[in-house]
Amino acid sequence: MKTVLVGAGNLATNLAVALHGAGHEVVQVLSRTEESAQRLASMIGASPITNPSMLVSDADVYIISITDMSLQTFDFTVFPTDAFVVHTAGSMPMDVIRCRRRGVLYPMQTFSRQRIVDFKTIPIFVEASGEEDTQVLEEMARTLSGNVYRLSSADRLYLHVAAVFCSNFVNHCYALTDEILSQHNIPFEAMLPLLDEVAAKVHKVPPRDAQTGPAARHDLNVINKHLELLSDQPRLQQIYDIMSKSISND
Amino acid sequence: MKTVLVGAGNLATNLAVALHGAGHEVVQVLSRTEESAQRLASMIGASPITNPSMLVSDADVYIISITDMSLQTFDFTVFPTDAFVVHTAGSMPMDVIRCRRRGVLYPMQTFSRQRIVDFKTIPIFVEASGEEDTQVLEEMARTLSGNVYRLSSADRLYLHVAAVFCSNFVNHCYALTDEILSQHNIPFEAMLPLLDEVAAKVHKVPPRDAQTGPAARHDLNVINKHLELLSDQPRLQQIYDIMSKSISND
Repeated sequence: MKTVLVGAGNLATNLAVALHGAGHEVVQVLSRTEESAQRLASMIGASPITNPSMLVSDADVYIISITDMSLQTFDFTVFPTDAFVVHTAGSMPMDVIRCRRRGVLYPMQTFSRQRIVDFKTIPIFVEASGEEDTQVLEEMARTLSGNVYRLSSADRLYLHVAAVFCSNFVNHCYALTDEILSQHNIPFEAMLPLLDEVAAKVHKVPPRDAQTGPAARHDLNVINKHLELLSDQPRLQQIYDIMSKSISND
Repeated sequence: MKTVLVGAGNLATNLAVALHGAGHEVVQVLSRTEESAQRLASMIGASPITNPSMLVSDADVYIISITDMSLQTFDFTVFPTDAFVVHTAGSMPMDVIRCRRRGVLYPMQTFSRQRIVDFKTIPIFVEASGEEDTQVLEEMARTLSGNVYRLSSADRLYLHVAAVFCSNFVNHCYALTDEILSQHNIPFEAMLPLLDEVAAKVHKVPPRDAQTGPAARHDLNVINKHLELLSDQPRLQQIYDIMSKSISND
């Protein structure tokens, strides 16, 4: 497929490299500065442009990968009338794109320009304004990853909330662990085998069935002992209390 | 070293196999039933016994790996007067052992009899009543694992609390993720690459520095939108609120 990329940030860079690697032709990279357009374009043999009026008119898909804020104020009249225009933002609805043929291709992963990731196992969520374009986008996504799902803008909001639980809140649990350990001179590294095992387990068992610990056993003796140990750290105590109650009620 | 194992459960089985594999001699396995003593003893060439009066008197270490409840009511007079007796329970103080030479060897991991784990990377926390015995136990532990730490009973209590945060609460975050996803027909498998990345990241970066997401960015717009999306699920909403506030204040 013949594609054009708008943007040259972390996601745009990783996506462009993946598209190029999968045999798609990225003909142009449009970016605000010459330097960033040039940097990405040179990686994949595309033409760097900074002026939207230079956009080719015959690409199969125009992919916009810019910040949410820039996306909301973007001038969509720069695209050819019948262009198929998609964005890559997990938190933005499809309709932020004011073109007739529009869509979303959202690869759910953290990206950095410094480390190009392997797209093959990254889940990609797609959506488009019509069934035909949805199929086009789905097929393109399948050339990049084995995990492609159709998802509406409404459901994608919940996907984002769910991702907060399983990445941001999980990482915060790690941080609280580190906070407790460092008070007792235990290195955080000592916990790595355990946390790896917890993550590995849910590859095989649904997390609800994998639940262990005092709250899962309704062991009030241990729970109360732990709450007492945390009595001088109200923040940790409150989280311990609420998480334990939530597990017990599950 | 010449050892005796009291108990034949999940931890006892894994520990016995690891000791045997590291070249230690497990001479006896004492268990309540003939069947369980026989099962474990046959795996490692030990003698199965069910009667404490049959215990040999010349083992270097007697390792008790039984339930916390059984440990509290155990009759320690069955051991020779000068025996070095250690338990393996993370949640029990060393002094539950009423012998002069006593200690703790706590391998922090989830064990099952069905799946024998590799001890080499499992953190082992040791403690003993005197410096000489601490060294003996430390050296024995080092033949099993590369991650051996000295830890007092008082600090071990906090280790246990910390482990609840980084395994039980983390798993509960996974379960809440699954709860949200299943309401929108998104398979939990779609989250595995993300959660693996979150776990992998803290191998290289302290969790506090690895924190991302709306709460870390103090992005009240997104936080409030998410709280609103969860308004018909008070349990999820409360956890979202408290975790976000805790991250914001970090």
